[in-house]
Amino acid sequence: MTLIENLNWRYATKRMNGQAVPQDKLQNILTAIQLAPSCAGLQPYDVIVVSDKDVLKKISEEACQQPQILEGSHLLVFAAWKNLTADQVEEYINRIATTRNAPAESLDGFKANLMQFTQRTPEQNHNWAARQAYIGLGVAAVAAAHEKVDATPMEGFNPAVLDKVLGLEEKGLGSVVIMALGYRDEANDYLLGAKKVRRSTEDMFTIV
Amino acid sequence: MTLIENLNWRYATKRMNGQAVPQDKLQNILTAIQLAPSCAGLQPYDVIVVSDKDVLKKISEEACQQPQILEGSHLLVFAAWKNLTADQVEEYINRIATTRNAPAESLDGFKANLMQFTQRTPEQNHNWAARQAYIGLGVAAVAAAHEKVDATPMEGFNPAVLDKVLGLEEKGLGSVVIMALGYRDEANDYLLGAKKVRRSTEDMFTIV
Repeated sequence: MTLIENLNWRYATKRMNGQAVPQDKLQNILTAIQLAPSCAGLQPYDVIVVSDKDVLKKISEEACQQPQILEGSHLLVFAAWKNLTADQVEEYINRIATTRNAPAESLDGFKANLMQFTQRTPEQNHNWAARQAYIGLGVAAVAAAHEKVDATPMEGFNPAVLDKVLGLEEKGLGSVVIMALGYRDEANDYLLGAKKVRRSTEDMFTIV
Repeated sequence: MTLIENLNWRYATKRMNGQAVPQDKLQNILTAIQLAPSCAGLQPYDVIVVSDKDVLKKISEEACQQPQILEGSHLLVFAAWKNLTADQVEEYINRIATTRNAPAESLDGFKANLMQFTQRTPEQNHNWAARQAYIGLGVAAVAAAHEKVDATPMEGFNPAVLDKVLGLEEKGLGSVVIMALGYRDEANDYLLGAKKVRRSTEDMFTIV
């Protein structure tokens, strides 16, 4: 299937059938997220992969009551960094130097640029980090479709409660968007087979 | 090539060679953006596709001096809605009803939910819209790689100036991220062939 066919195949699955996503397919989706582009390559977000049924139940009861939480086999929680610290920049610069076998001094200019980010407010940095997480979400949606795994991105949850359930705040993380992975319930999903609704090319794109 | 191979092939191309992206490949990238998921399916962002050399020159001089602006053949400007209005929700609901041949009343509950979004501040809505645009950016990055087109996402530009150059403010739009499309300059791009630097699986993902 081509990429466009995959994107047409996918939809925001409303009901899933409980079938588990196999480990190799899950791994490919995670690898795609890991390879997703991000601002300056900083990847300022974590992904919590929840398949523990008790935790999913707690999330479903307390933070997000959509049925896919329990009917999917895995829930990806995209948790953006609450800030960007000098230590995180240092770690990244060292990792580049090690990975590329480059002298750290050759990265001084790049490092100085990144250090400027640490001067922004935590709120600015969290918003910026959240946007990078959404790139990961977009790539994950394509990767899931590529694996013929259904994926439902969701914003309709209580981030403060979810952060508490997963202990994210202590880790300097804040959940921004989640994605259930599983398989469509062909008998019960009212949205299955519904025609895709999209803005027209003329409306959405301006050619200059 | 698999999706993972495509993601490994792509990189944030620093220098492009001026070769133009063919129309069919560009079209596939735009279609992928159009099919990208978004919150409630609202697609609250436009994409300005700039290939006019004079406009690109102006953007390069005034808003973003990175060489890919002029060395690529097309610049995608992701411009998020500055707010979400009741009219926009109405239009969307009508479009769903028409596309799916559904009575508008059957969408009343959904519409009421979306109308709540219009009660948020313009700043909240613009931030929310920006995040949806970043999903589109992620999908576009995959689509470009799929087409073997190089793509460089960039945040390092002056949005206020870019908005002025493209007349976005009058349209209720604000640029949030841009992406140059073209072909890598194999002779002059220092980043070509550099090993990808990524956070480790253990660092980025938490299994629960």
